[in-house]
Amino acid sequence: MNKFDTYLKERAKLVEKNLAKYIAKIPNSPKILTDAMDYSLQAGGKRVRPVLLMATAEAFGKKAQDVLPAACAVEMLHTYSLIHDDLPCMDNDDLRRGKPTNHKVFGEDLALLAGDALLTYVFEVFAQNGKIKSIGAGNTLSALLNFAHCAGASGMVGGQTADVYAEGMGTQEAHSFRADKLRRSSKLLTKKTLHYFMLPPQVKETTPETILNYIHANKTGALIRGSVETGALLAGAKGSDLKYIQQYANCIGLVFQIVDDILDVTSSVKQLGKSNSDDKNGKLTFVSLYGLEGSRKHAQLLIAKAQKALGCLKNVRQKNLWPLYEMAEFFKTRTY
Amino acid sequence: MNKFDTYLKERAKLVEKNLAKYIAKIPNSPKILTDAMDYSLQAGGKRVRPVLLMATAEAFGKKAQDVLPAACAVEMLHTYSLIHDDLPCMDNDDLRRGKPTNHKVFGEDLALLAGDALLTYVFEVFAQNGKIKSIGAGNTLSALLNFAHCAGASGMVGGQTADVYAEGMGTQEAHSFRADKLRRSSKLLTKKTLHYFMLPPQVKETTPETILNYIHANKTGALIRGSVETGALLAGAKGSDLKYIQQYANCIGLVFQIVDDILDVTSSVKQLGKSNSDDKNGKLTFVSLYGLEGSRKHAQLLIAKAQKALGCLKNVRQKNLWPLYEMAEFFKTRTY
Repeated sequence: MNKFDTYLKERAKLVEKNLAKYIAKIPNSPKILTDAMDYSLQAGGKRVRPVLLMATAEAFGKKAQDVLPAACAVEMLHTYSLIHDDLPCMDNDDLRRGKPTNHKVFGEDLALLAGDALLTYVFEVFAQNGKIKSIGAGNTLSALLNFAHCAGASGMVGGQTADVYAEGMGTQEAHSFRADKLRRSSKLLTKKTLHYFMLPPQVKETTPETILNYIHANKTGALIRGSVETGALLAGAKGSDLKYIQQYANCIGLVFQIVDDILDVTSSVKQLGKSNSDDKNGKLTFVSLYGLEGSRKHAQLLIAKAQKALGCLKNVRQKNLWPLYEMAEFFKTRTY
Repeated sequence: MNKFDTYLKERAKLVEKNLAKYIAKIPNSPKILTDAMDYSLQAGGKRVRPVLLMATAEAFGKKAQDVLPAACAVEMLHTYSLIHDDLPCMDNDDLRRGKPTNHKVFGEDLALLAGDALLTYVFEVFAQNGKIKSIGAGNTLSALLNFAHCAGASGMVGGQTADVYAEGMGTQEAHSFRADKLRRSSKLLTKKTLHYFMLPPQVKETTPETILNYIHANKTGALIRGSVETGALLAGAKGSDLKYIQQYANCIGLVFQIVDDILDVTSSVKQLGKSNSDDKNGKLTFVSLYGLEGSRKHAQLLIAKAQKALGCLKNVRQKNLWPLYEMAEFFKTRTY
């Protein structure tokens, strides 16, 4: 195993150990609820978001332990989003990471509540970061505010909303806005209606490209971005450093989603641990719009841009920057 | 209209004006999502929780305006819980406050996402209270942490979980733990299983009384309690004052739920603005366990206890205490 793989594994283990601790610490909850929360938290995954958060905080001079509450909170947020996304009224997936989805084990009602409980616990755990002296209440509150912004209607949930309507848009008909494959309506949808469903008012044009861009920047991108920014804000990053780390975050966030789209086409169900639901549902994806090669090329450009942004950081510990460089590479090459 | 009614109306209006502002301020979200959030936020209600929060902060010497972000956040949290509670996989209600429920208008997927977005926005808005100088980051973070605790698995969501399994327990058979009316299973449930579903490990006995107590203290009580505590913590209340205001909060939180149970039996659908779903589903309620008169008596005892606790507060503005006294009375007498 190379240095970065070891780093990733060790950090992931640290996060997992502490996730289990945080769940065990919840007082006054029916056992079935904490079991349902725990089931999805312990279902594996690479823990990329909390590792990114810790790596960024370390680049800005803090220790991984200093930001551990926020790192766990970010993973909890990711987990709640998966539980809700798998529900029958959303993607209706039976498998996640090779295991039955939360609602398949605990029922729809409990899965809904486990997601709600996790999303609420995110902020309780995040707020505990303020008790760590090297971080303090001020930085924690700023970071929490920014993170909530990335995770909500202006970020992840906004992207998920647009994504709900993206089913069937990966087909040729949808490109010309014939909407007979859209779930919501059997009538012809106008550009105006599509805009209402899938884009914020600020976006002027309604094209498959603007829609895909919005979905990608938000559905997955916002949380990757939010993780990096949280690490930076907790560590008190400012000025141009904050600008460049955000540029890095934006680029790798987008790469992450592009790679996801590529994997959804090229991987088998077994490799992916879930069904190729994008294809099944005819979703608008990077691959459906730009093809496999075009998507790979775009990912490479973004990675170069991300790494260039890292080179512009000033008040950082140079010796702590390598995991952020490696993370960008990892996003490109990951095949599982 | 008496003085307290006027107070309640004016404060509710202030909250509603600002809720609308906060929704209008959300950037980068598809319009349909903010519309879905707004729909339920603007669906009325007495705004009891934010008013309690403001009244408590004023009792401890702050201005209502100083805690307005947190007050709006509390109402958003309450609203998300209603949206998710009405979903088909939960109570499956078509009406709420006389209007079609969120999923009836926007569809199940959007209602789920609107709830998630509101719950996330709760903490973004709450965190903004830290920018108000008279409150500051430290008090805001402490209050946010406590509030998240009240709203999550240890509080409201825990109570909702137990409540899911409480259907059918209001009948005589359920009192002897025959579980054929419980949704989850058609087999005889043991006390052990019921405990797993409906009680935290710390509660030793499994009886209809301990279960009802847990549900009431948490499903509705925790958020009422959380609102009062948030007002106190933002204002920097400490020591015995914090203890007594919590006692007040606990009592009126419980009264609120008892009155809810009473109203569910005594009110018509039109008065209630929703269907009498408790009765329909044979839920375990205060009335099903102690009868109408027993419930009313218990509420009165709790109100006396709540008002006594107010009398023990020390570092408060005496002239600002009256709304908290009146609120307790109001909970008892409210008939709609």
